[in-house]
Amino acid sequence: MGEKNKLYDLIIIGAGPAGLGASIYASRYKLNHLVIGSEIGGQVVEAAEIENYAGFNSISGRDLMKKFQEQTERLGAEIIQAETERIEKTNNGFKVLIRNGKEHEYKSKTVILALGMSPRKMDIPGEDKFIGKGVSYCATCDAMFFTDKTVAVIGGGDSAAVAAIHLAGFADKVYLIHRGSVHFKPALSEQIKQNDKIKMIGSTGIKEIKGGQTVESIVYKDESREKEISVQGVFVEIGSVPKTTIAKNLGVEMDEQEYIIVNQAQETNVENVYAAGDVTTGSNKFRQIITAVAEGAVAAGSAYKKMKL
Amino acid sequence: MGEKNKLYDLIIIGAGPAGLGASIYASRYKLNHLVIGSEIGGQVVEAAEIENYAGFNSISGRDLMKKFQEQTERLGAEIIQAETERIEKTNNGFKVLIRNGKEHEYKSKTVILALGMSPRKMDIPGEDKFIGKGVSYCATCDAMFFTDKTVAVIGGGDSAAVAAIHLAGFADKVYLIHRGSVHFKPALSEQIKQNDKIKMIGSTGIKEIKGGQTVESIVYKDESREKEISVQGVFVEIGSVPKTTIAKNLGVEMDEQEYIIVNQAQETNVENVYAAGDVTTGSNKFRQIITAVAEGAVAAGSAYKKMKL
Repeated sequence: MGEKNKLYDLIIIGAGPAGLGASIYASRYKLNHLVIGSEIGGQVVEAAEIENYAGFNSISGRDLMKKFQEQTERLGAEIIQAETERIEKTNNGFKVLIRNGKEHEYKSKTVILALGMSPRKMDIPGEDKFIGKGVSYCATCDAMFFTDKTVAVIGGGDSAAVAAIHLAGFADKVYLIHRGSVHFKPALSEQIKQNDKIKMIGSTGIKEIKGGQTVESIVYKDESREKEISVQGVFVEIGSVPKTTIAKNLGVEMDEQEYIIVNQAQETNVENVYAAGDVTTGSNKFRQIITAVAEGAVAAGSAYKKMKL
Repeated sequence: MGEKNKLYDLIIIGAGPAGLGASIYASRYKLNHLVIGSEIGGQVVEAAEIENYAGFNSISGRDLMKKFQEQTERLGAEIIQAETERIEKTNNGFKVLIRNGKEHEYKSKTVILALGMSPRKMDIPGEDKFIGKGVSYCATCDAMFFTDKTVAVIGGGDSAAVAAIHLAGFADKVYLIHRGSVHFKPALSEQIKQNDKIKMIGSTGIKEIKGGQTVESIVYKDESREKEISVQGVFVEIGSVPKTTIAKNLGVEMDEQEYIIVNQAQETNVENVYAAGDVTTGSNKFRQIITAVAEGAVAAGSAYKKMKL
């Protein structure tokens, strides 16, 4: 996997729609490149049904990303499934340090940051401790582990509603804990109302997740009083944040919400560093699969023009 | 087809990737809209094989656009196949005049211009006169009509090379007339060299296309002398230009190459007029199917936000 002492033309960090879209075009331009991503397909694999990616009437996120991956590999790219630890500038480009079991290091002339988003955390006691032991950020992925159990979903937006409805197909009882007001699409509101398993709870704040080996209860504030309810699972659905940790030490400029600032060519302020997809300010922040792929394509085109023309 | 006295939320002019991409998102936002285009699929239907639209390893332009069309219609949009004559501002939006046999008129609050590009013309005597009678701008479409005949391809870029190679599969002889220097991809150069049917001709200018009912010869300059060769077909492959005629009388701003200037939200300088795809300055002018669809999606999102939020 990868060649350690080779100077690649390009390393793409991220294997979601933006990263794979960039690779498809990098292959077209015969750029010697690697794709490195912690999850192939990125957050899209969690989408149960996609109806707005042109070319497919209806397809699951997992199946669509499988197609992207196959196409990327068929065009000759190598995808390494690993977490990127750090990117450093060198004399002639960049050094990318990854970890998948042990550490590896790759070198390239240019970099495309297709880092994507990660779920926003609540930052309360017990949250980190119980990740994978009852705390989850992906109902689509983990609902089945809570068959006949009681779970809480935290959030007041559509993704919380979708998670609650999905979980009600498995769990015995679903508490949907929101901040007093919800803003669900009408169709989702209706489904929630009609589902006996789902109970809405208004709260002024989630305080703590408690348990032993796994989650046993959640503590929340109801006006001035604290209440504790017994749950085996907590699904956090309070939005996403751009994954910019490894961009920071490269000196890449971001806006006040921490999205990487790009121009129309998907260039960042750092020479030979491009960015694409949800992590950027591109496409008017209209964050969709189609815009992510397009930004990846433009980024690869820009890298090519810079290097080879 | 369409409702004449209705005020649509949106009319999308153009039924190529950008127009259909816009419609997919307009449907998602439940915008009452029409798509009006002279050719469903736009210039993409001429592409024999597409390998860089993410999701499809290899697909013909026609098949991919068929999928886009089906998806668009399945989501509830109406596509009217017609040439748009003119767009006018009204008190509450826009009036779109089309012609398909007779004239029709539709009204909308907003407009997305997904006008695409059209082949660049040579502007020489005989060119317009023999369109469809020997003069063609689409080798993929028309090659079969020149089986066992002699044809000329005009141009020095990859599209001219691709056209010549494709035509050599049908015609007896293919003259590839260029301006003295060519810039083909190495793989194309190789194929042209190895093809006995293709003869390269350097010329300082094409002068005239001659014929009776159909094309009979082409006149070109070779240094100072004019030469005439007998051909039954002339394929013009000298690039494309943005189709901006109907944008002009709306006061839409363009750059020096006549591309419609858009911002990141795909807004033009005229309120409630958006533009998407090849006709715009968007996506760093990286003109691909994926970027066109993405721009269409962003344009529809912007129109929605403006109207409904």
